[in-house]
Amino acid sequence: SSSIRLAVIPGDGIGTEVVAEGLKVLHAAGVKTETVEYDLGARRYHASGETLPDGVLEELRGFDAILLGAVGDPSVPPGVLERDLLLRLRFELDHYVNLRPVKLFPGVETPLGGVRPEDIDMIVVREGTEGLYAGAGGVLRRGTPQEIATQESLNTAFGVERVVRYAFDKAQARPRRKLTLVHKTNVLTFAGDLWARTVDRVSVEYPEVTTDYCHVDAASMFFVNQPQRFDVIVTDNLFGDILTDIGAAVAGGIGLAASGNVNPSRTTPSMFEPVHGSAPDIAGQGKADPTATILSVAMLLDHVGLAAAAARVEQAVADDLAGRQVAGSDRLTREIGDDIAARVAG
Amino acid sequence: SSSIRLAVIPGDGIGTEVVAEGLKVLHAAGVKTETVEYDLGARRYHASGETLPDGVLEELRGFDAILLGAVGDPSVPPGVLERDLLLRLRFELDHYVNLRPVKLFPGVETPLGGVRPEDIDMIVVREGTEGLYAGAGGVLRRGTPQEIATQESLNTAFGVERVVRYAFDKAQARPRRKLTLVHKTNVLTFAGDLWARTVDRVSVEYPEVTTDYCHVDAASMFFVNQPQRFDVIVTDNLFGDILTDIGAAVAGGIGLAASGNVNPSRTTPSMFEPVHGSAPDIAGQGKADPTATILSVAMLLDHVGLAAAAARVEQAVADDLAGRQVAGSDRLTREIGDDIAARVAG
Ligand SMILES: CC(C)[C@H](C(=O)O)[C@@H](O)C(=O)O
Ligand SMILES: CC(C)[C@H](C(=O)O)[C@@H](O)C(=O)O
Repeated sequence: SSSIRLAVIPGDGIGTEVVAEGLKVLHAAGVKTETVEYDLGARRYHASGETLPDGVLEELRGFDAILLGAVGDPSVPPGVLERDLLLRLRFELDHYVNLRPVKLFPGVETPLGGVRPEDIDMIVVREGTEGLYAGAGGVLRRGTPQEIATQESLNTAFGVERVVRYAFDKAQARPRRKLTLVHKTNVLTFAGDLWARTVDRVSVEYPEVTTDYCHVDAASMFFVNQPQRFDVIVTDNLFGDILTDIGAAVAGGIGLAASGNVNPSRTTPSMFEPVHGSAPDIAGQGKADPTATILSVAMLLDHVGLAAAAARVEQAVADDLAGRQVAGSDRLTREIGDDIAARVAG
Repeated sequence: SSSIRLAVIPGDGIGTEVVAEGLKVLHAAGVKTETVEYDLGARRYHASGETLPDGVLEELRGFDAILLGAVGDPSVPPGVLERDLLLRLRFELDHYVNLRPVKLFPGVETPLGGVRPEDIDMIVVREGTEGLYAGAGGVLRRGTPQEIATQESLNTAFGVERVVRYAFDKAQARPRRKLTLVHKTNVLTFAGDLWARTVDRVSVEYPEVTTDYCHVDAASMFFVNQPQRFDVIVTDNLFGDILTDIGAAVAGGIGLAASGNVNPSRTTPSMFEPVHGSAPDIAGQGKADPTATILSVAMLLDHVGLAAAAARVEQAVADDLAGRQVAGSDRLTREIGDDIAARVAG
């Protein structure tokens, strides 16, 4: 078995801390890797003004996968690293699937009273390369009483169909075989119509998958009071961003939420990252929870075809989480990584 | 004291049932009203193809306020009544403030474990006449693999500033004096910049109000796991739509969520409505909860200057809610209305 070539972007703040634990667990799983670390984020931006040099982007294309910690720091003007680094990677590498499981592991505390783990077990398939994230829009007469600012959501049949097909495949492979489109078709009539028609059309090819539809406002409510409604969700870039943060909240917090920015065609490396940010307030204290990154590593392994290793990492996380009420919540980042790595190795 | 001229649009489904109770409570409060009922919604649409005839719109302008139940029915093509009736009223009557309290009343069950009523007590000031609700956008090559569909968010300095000012006034009048802007400035850079600059600029005039900023994804999470962060929120039309449904969920459900579509200049009548829809699944059974409508009536009374009557209705609702664990949850729509009306009258 050949080794996987992995680009690692630790990034800023707790990003470096959690990535170290992700790699520790990866190695404990006995997966042969060649890793190359890339210094991208606030430090590099301040040192050289660079966010994502073209040469680095070209190098990144040569890897099997990318593991990213988190980028962003209050010292950098808001949005710069998000757009010129994180979103640029998603767009340049055509990560049209932003895959975000929302799953309540046994033993994990949730702010919801009275839900059981089996009530929260879904996958949000968020479109990753279109919509309001395209950056289209403009401003006229900035700073005057006559200012107008626009933002445009761009949606193509090409872009919508490929992510919808991916979501149907996911739904088909799960026991419940249910796919819910989340949009706001009653207000976003042009985009909503394209999404709804696409789901209708593709559904014919998946007779075993039950499809339904939910407005984004209602879906946001149901994440809180009826999460068991959902199995696989397909939605646009912005709605997916919002829903998966609600999902993180109900499934025990942003410290556990993993994600993959996936190009299913495998013509470019997919990128795996925790949903949380660089958390400057707790950076450097060694107390960030690395679990979201470790679960992202499991998704990465699955993506590169190492399903057994992926399952072992996920099981080790599940076991660690199940014991947390006993282990207490005061373990350091490093200790959580050690404990999960030991379970994976043993 | 002169009487208030009230236009009533019961609408569809449970809309008619809950509006009847709202009016019952209004009368119990001893408020002199002249009401005129308008038949708008699915029934009229099927009968005549009309959604909101221009003549009706002109008549509505003459009232002091409008009470609306809910519009919408599966028999009407999706979006028609929403856009041509509900949203048209909001836009034509320039309801630029969509006011949505999110408040956990004592005694009310919430899906959140371990929150106390004092943890959830905020007001969302949602912009009501701009953003993605403007209906701007288009489609090319519909139904072909080359289709593109766009939606445009339109934001003006005029529109943003007036709602931001309103929100600062609200915050100034509350004990905590805190205002949070919710947006997605790191992605929606043009619109986000206008919103953020406007809040900054206006904040200078409100030195006693603390302002902060939260991305919509994080805010959606905090509604679930740290609702006590928020006092007054100001946000755009779509984000407000989503946030207030999460708010309804955490504050005990959509059956309790009230709203006002307000034109603070009072040059047009403001419109008060429960956040819930027409709920065709339970319509006609007399079991819908009229509380959201009754709380909307309290907001209406407050808006037309009858603050004491408003407070009495809100207190009656609070008392009724506090007793629900005893009273049980099997009261009919009519019975809940009777009980609250009796408290208001007594
Ligand atoms: C940092 C930001 C641009 C990003 C997004 O909006 O996609 C983040 O919220 C996420 O969900 O990965
Ligand atoms: C019915 C729909 C158009 C409406 C909206 O999106 O504003 C509703 O969800 C609301 O919140 O009042």
